[in-house]
Amino acid sequence: MRLYEWKPAPNPRRVLIFLAEKGVTVPMENVGQGFALRPDYVQRYVPATVPMLELDDGTQIGEAMAICRYFEALYPEPPLMGTTALEVAVVDMWERRAYELGLTGVAEIFRNTHPEFKDRSLPVYGARLPQIPALVERGQWRLRRFYELFDAQLGANEFVAGKRYTVADITALCTIGFAHFAKLDIPAEYTNFQRWYRDVSSRPSAAA
Amino acid sequence: MRLYEWKPAPNPRRVLIFLAEKGVTVPMENVGQGFALRPDYVQRYVPATVPMLELDDGTQIGEAMAICRYFEALYPEPPLMGTTALEVAVVDMWERRAYELGLTGVAEIFRNTHPEFKDRSLPVYGARLPQIPALVERGQWRLRRFYELFDAQLGANEFVAGKRYTVADITALCTIGFAHFAKLDIPAEYTNFQRWYRDVSSRPSAAA
Repeated sequence: MRLYEWKPAPNPRRVLIFLAEKGVTVPMENVGQGFALRPDYVQRYVPATVPMLELDDGTQIGEAMAICRYFEALYPEPPLMGTTALEVAVVDMWERRAYELGLTGVAEIFRNTHPEFKDRSLPVYGARLPQIPALVERGQWRLRRFYELFDAQLGANEFVAGKRYTVADITALCTIGFAHFAKLDIPAEYTNFQRWYRDVSSRPSAAA
Repeated sequence: MRLYEWKPAPNPRRVLIFLAEKGVTVPMENVGQGFALRPDYVQRYVPATVPMLELDDGTQIGEAMAICRYFEALYPEPPLMGTTALEVAVVDMWERRAYELGLTGVAEIFRNTHPEFKDRSLPVYGARLPQIPALVERGQWRLRRFYELFDAQLGANEFVAGKRYTVADITALCTIGFAHFAKLDIPAEYTNFQRWYRDVSSRPSAAA
């Protein structure tokens, strides 16, 4: 198998941290080129996004969480997606909220302002999707709601989905890393969120 | 437990069809009121979205797919989210694509044009989020890409994620139902998609 990734982007990083937490290593290939993906990769993988895991028989698995789920099934320890029915549901719920509010919020702000993405405000090739300035405000709203909701949750819980580090922490961590890159760090008033960020950033996996 | 839903909305329907396929019945409560959610529900459940599953101890599980995952763990038969590592990943991948391209595309068109959602273009309470006309075009792009990608996939596969009916079919089916409501039916040229839609619509669960 081979994992196609592009280091600076938040979605590949979700998988890289996941693998680091599992202690699993996989052959990887960086397919980034400047602020875009290499043309040969875009040609070979129709959705043209990263990360993508290609199995030896040619099967292509895209979407960061689908790839994580594949490795969770192959290497159940340590569990990063819950084990009981309730844990599994709660982890999935918080992971989705981190994605829909946090990661999507930062992406809306970044993709609709950065000059490199002028005509590519969604991760798309072969179509012209101009930036929509009004999405910046909407992204800011999402991000604020993400900070509020997660700060409250992290006031009562060590990790995003409760007592254990899970993939919900990984998506939230990648959101903050991306937000930092876009100069949108956690506002000082969210002290629970700050405490959590120091904790999860100090894990060796955060270097991935 | 109790499932809070609102029939006309596509996200609750994803769970209702899922439960119908499992043959599981759960006490339910409709919390819709006109084109909005009942104020007492919005107050009681902070994210203020449907569906939400409340357990007897008060635990609230939100996000349609997290709720489905809870029931998949409690009632594994018939499996709707895959069983092997590969199946689990492939189902998750296609379910996410159906959501990101299909359901999100229709929602972008509908929420940014329908007069009832003038200041509520995301499913949000307590904030004013005006419609963004430019998102209509982007939603149309997403939806076109959804039709193209899924039509190709359904030309080679009986169901969205392969040989078996899964939750990926459910999200795609709810997308088409929502698209129909918004007068955005499957274009005639996507004959594989049309064939699939006739098949999945004829299952008793589609009445949910």
